[in-house]
Formats: sequence, structure tokens, C-alpha cells
Amino acid sequence: MARKVELKRRQILAEIKSLGLNICEQIDGGRFPLIEIPSRSSANIVYDETLRQYVLGPKRIKRYSKNIRHVKKFSQLVWLAYFIRQLMLSNKSSTLRDVYYSAEAYGIFFKSQQESNEIIADMEALLDTAREEFHIFPEERSAIFGELLVEYTCPGYEGRRVWLDSHPSGIMIGPSLVSAEFVECKAERVIVIESGGMFDRFIEEQVHKRYKAILIHTGGQAPRSTRWLIRRLNKELGLPVYIFTDGDPWGMHIAMVIISGSAHAAHIKDLATPDAKWIGVWPDDIIKYKLPTDKMNDQDIKRLKELEKDVRYQNKFWQSKVKLFLKLRKKAEQQAFSRYGLTYVVDNYLPDKLSEIEG
Amino acid sequence: MARKVELKRRQILAEIKSLGLNICEQIDGGRFPLIEIPSRSSANIVYDETLRQYVLGPKRIKRYSKNIRHVKKFSQLVWLAYFIRQLMLSNKSSTLRDVYYSAEAYGIFFKSQQESNEIIADMEALLDTAREEFHIFPEERSAIFGELLVEYTCPGYEGRRVWLDSHPSGIMIGPSLVSAEFVECKAERVIVIESGGMFDRFIEEQVHKRYKAILIHTGGQAPRSTRWLIRRLNKELGLPVYIFTDGDPWGMHIAMVIISGSAHAAHIKDLATPDAKWIGVWPDDIIKYKLPTDKMNDQDIKRLKELEKDVRYQNKFWQSKVKLFLKLRKKAEQQAFSRYGLTYVVDNYLPDKLSEIEG
Repeated sequence: MARKVELKRRQILAEIKSLGLNICEQIDGGRFPLIEIPSRSSANIVYDETLRQYVLGPKRIKRYSKNIRHVKKFSQLVWLAYFIRQLMLSNKSSTLRDVYYSAEAYGIFFKSQQESNEIIADMEALLDTAREEFHIFPEERSAIFGELLVEYTCPGYEGRRVWLDSHPSGIMIGPSLVSAEFVECKAERVIVIESGGMFDRFIEEQVHKRYKAILIHTGGQAPRSTRWLIRRLNKELGLPVYIFTDGDPWGMHIAMVIISGSAHAAHIKDLATPDAKWIGVWPDDIIKYKLPTDKMNDQDIKRLKELEKDVRYQNKFWQSKVKLFLKLRKKAEQQAFSRYGLTYVVDNYLPDKLSEIEG
Repeated sequence: MARKVELKRRQILAEIKSLGLNICEQIDGGRFPLIEIPSRSSANIVYDETLRQYVLGPKRIKRYSKNIRHVKKFSQLVWLAYFIRQLMLSNKSSTLRDVYYSAEAYGIFFKSQQESNEIIADMEALLDTAREEFHIFPEERSAIFGELLVEYTCPGYEGRRVWLDSHPSGIMIGPSLVSAEFVECKAERVIVIESGGMFDRFIEEQVHKRYKAILIHTGGQAPRSTRWLIRRLNKELGLPVYIFTDGDPWGMHIAMVIISGSAHAAHIKDLATPDAKWIGVWPDDIIKYKLPTDKMNDQDIKRLKELEKDVRYQNKFWQSKVKLFLKLRKKAEQQAFSRYGLTYVVDNYLPDKLSEIEG
């Protein structure tokens, strides 16, 4: 198994063991055990200007087994630690949904998946580790394609090396890819793409070769595993990341969540990519390229007004984009460039943007 | 380029040419040209008991350029023929959305994508060919994994052979995979899976090796490209196809659409896989395996009552499943098996089902 993954695995196992030992010691000392975890309440979520993302403040909460209102969450958390330990020891992965159902066999019940998701988030805060690292994944999948050689670490594939451009429809970003190591990379940048159609267009037009780019398809809002992978490409390989979405508040915010993270995941530090850049479709592009547009509806406008006040949008670049959208009251999809022929977006728009952004 | 794909390409180009010649001849003969196409109206959609799927009846409609009510659709169809010819000649692919936008540059306007989709469906009926074969794809993507060697035919990958188990998170089913040829197959069956979590579980538990299965993830209702691929695996390679969905009317109907097709695609013959089998989660399984369930809501019940009358559900097997669901008024997800441990579904449920079905 690759070194980094194995190190992280040992670290998590050690932390779970120390959590258990700590509980045992409290019991041996004749006390009702308690667990202290960082508070994820909105009062403790702050935007860190230096890290340029949401983080948790210093507040901590206590889960006290003596307190009748705490005892359920306390036991759910202890069971989850047991479950994660089993996952790590057997090198298996699980979905959020699996966790919800798996508890039943142990007499631990969650009212809903919402409840088990919250306990998993508590555990992330407690271990200061994204759940992907202890093998718990969401259902959503996105895809990747490009000249990157990875080495898998998952069972049955340990040590196997494969280039991510071996299949021209792209590779799913699932548990095995998230835990893979990067071995060799011929790409010089990452382009993150909202729609599947545009992802296929970029592959067909050989953007991976012509612009030396790793291509990632988010399929709408990027799943956390995908944001995690984007960050790794940026931090581990030093690749600049460009995000290309539809030209509307929802597309713009897909970019923002990749760049600055979400309040909901404020307890996880390694999901955001603060240096990633949104390259379009900007409201300016709608004018410059005379794109076919749709009129914004009430929801679009309402969303823009929310984003205008959002702490993540408080700089000149983002304010100007929000304000121009509000002025135009029009939106355009990525695929609107097809108006000028299928390859225009790759032959003209993309190089224009890259030279504008990369200077 | 692989032989079959090239043959189909030539055939489509020849048919488009003959469509064009026919129009020219009518004009040369001093007549307003007309195009005759199979009617896709619901009055002309029949369920074929022999083919065990929806097909079009013999009714045809005329698009007459002399008729002011027809002339818009007539010109849209002619433009689409031109567009498809360009796609085929340049060996490029397009999405439904691209078609909608691309028309603008030629002064052809579609009110909405719905309108361009309808013209594309007319063209499918006219050429008796699924749009995937003339390179027009939807946005949705699903995934595949298994011991199947394919040879790609798409630009940049012509003749390249890759095994579909080379990436343990699975391969996206996109344009390039749909146009690939099957070279060698070590699998003996296909298992189609509704949820991404279960797809990953099956890979992790090595179902592809232990049960010699190609695994396909539909991600909800299977996109047409995926149904097309499933049929090819069944017809070209003779592999039996088993469909594993959530135990509710929606999951059951995901299986049915793969098996018998949808009325909406009645004009396409090669999307259905009549010999595919739904293996669960059956309502019987909910009882037998004491699965954790949710109560059905009003929409579930309403849907079941619709399906009870649906022509595709008029045999003993399907009627009994619908009636048992209606009696139980409970539903269970695929992942509910996690109640018995993460691997129970693969270690116990799957072999039980396969021996029941395969005898």
C-alpha cells in the first residue's frame, strides 16, 4: 500500500484507540465518560481571511454520558468510532447511507440519515479528518480525465498504476480514486467543468493535450470527494485550477464552493482550493460573445441578492460579477457557445480566457 | 476504425444523402417537397407481444413544405439532417443541448430544447436509428466496470484496446464507450445496479470476479446510452442481464424500462432488453430478509396503481410484485441489507438470488 495512505490509516486508528482508551479510563476512575468535540454550530463558524475559507472557531461542546439528553448521541458516536475502526482494519469503504443502516444490527438507531450524517460530521471535527479518509463516501459521483498516472491502494488493486486518460469517456471519481497516489503528471493545469456535455466536448477536442489540462466533471455542485481531489491536484502537484460553469448564480456558486468551501463543511480544512479561479461563463462573456440567453427568474434574482451579501463574495471581482448579473438579468449556459459551432468554445473561448487569466 | 461502426456510419450517410436527393428531385420536378416519417403519436404506439416492447404502428405522417403549418418543422428536419451529416463526416459527437444551440447560427430557431428533441426523435424514426448512432447524446452519465476488453473507435483512440476493469471506480458510459467494439469478455453475466453506493460495494467485494459479472451503475433511471449498451451486452455477447434496484415502484420501473422500453422511445427498436430480469429488491425480499423499511407515501401508492394497469406489467410475475407492494405498503432500499453487515448483500443475498434465477 502506498506510503501516505498507510500513514493516514495508522494515524486514524491511533486516534480512535486513544478515544476509546480515554473513555475506558474515565469509567475505570468511577466517572461517567464524556467526549469533547469542536462545536459545529453556526455561532462557531467563522470565515478565515488568511485561509480564505470557512473554519470552526475555538468553541467546544461536551457529550456527557451522564446527561440523559446527551446519552443517545454519545453512544452513536462511540458506535461510529467502532464502525470506522472496522472499516479501516478491513480496508473497506462505506457510504453515508450504509452507516445509517449498519447501526441497526448493533441496537444503535438513527431516526434518519440526517441524524447519522450529523454524527459523522461530529467525528470529522473530532478527528480533524474528512470522512473520505476514514472511507465514508456520498452517493454522488463525478468524473476525471487527463494525463495523470495514479497508483491505486484499494484491495485488489494495490500498487497498480494506470493513466487517467486510458478511457476517453472518463473515470468515475469513487473511493478508489480518492485514495490513490499521484505518480506522474504531464498536465500543467486543471479545468473543472459543470456539465457532462461540455466535459465530453473538451475530451473530443483534445483539450487535455492541446492545453495540457486534467479535466474534471462536477455534474452540478461538486461532491466532496471531488473537491478533495481538486485540492490535492492543486496542493500536491501545484497545478492551477480553473472552473468553467454555466453563466448563472448557481454555476457561479459551484465555483465558489470549490474555492472557499461551504459553511456546512467548515470543520474540514482540506476541501477548499482558495487559489482556484472561476473563468466563466461570466456575465461579461454574455455581452462580449453575444451568447444566447434566458431571462433570469425570481429564484435566480433572489439567489444573486443572497450571494451579494455572502461573506465569500466580498471582494471586487465577485461583487462586480454579481452586480453585472443583476443588471443584465440574463443567464447563459456553457453550451450556448455551440451557437458558433461545436468547437468554438475550445478553439476560441478557452484560449482567450487562459491568456487573460494566466497573463 | 472498427468495422461495424464504420459500416453504420456509411449507412447513415447514405440515408441522409438519399433524403436530400429525394427533396431535390421533388423541387426539380416543380413540386413543393415533402418528407414522410413514421408517426410517433400515442395512437400509433403499440406494445408488440413478440418483441416484448413498445413499437410504432404503420401510420405515417407527411411534412409538407407547401403547408404553412408544416414548413417550420420541415426546415428544422432538413437542417438536422445537414447537422448530422457534418457530425458523421467529422466524427464528432454532440449533446441534445448542443443541437438546440447550434441551429441558431443557421437561422433555424427552436423555441426550446423540447422542440429540438422532438425533431431529433423524428429523425430517429425516419432513419430507424437511435440518435446515439448519429452521435447525439444526453447529458446524464452512468458507469460500467468489468472484465470486458473494448476497442475504441473515437478520434485519438482509434484501435486502442482497454479492459473495463482497469479503474476500480468504474468508467463513465459516454459517447466513446457507446461507439466502442467488444473484443473479449471474461464475464458470464451483467448486473445492473441502481445506486452508486451499491455499485462501489459490488466492486469492492469483487463481484466481477466472484460472480463473473460486468457491473453497470444506472444512477436512477438508466440513460438511453446505458440501455443501448446493456442491450448490446445481451444480444452481441449473449450475457444474461440482472437488474438490482431499490424495493419500491420507482426502482421496479427502472428495471421495467430497461426490459421493455418506454412509450417515449417506441420508435427505437434497439434500446430494450426483453430477456433482462429484475432480481430485487422484491417486496418478497422485504419479508424474507426482514429488511428495514419506510412506509410508502401517497405518490408511491399512486404510482403502483398506475403500474398495475400498465400494459408492460400484465403477466403473473409483475402483477404479483405490484400487488404484494400494495399489500405491504412498505419499501426498502438496496442498502438496507447493510443492517446485516456491509458484505451480506454480496455474500448471501446475491448468491441466493442468482441460484434462484439461474436455477
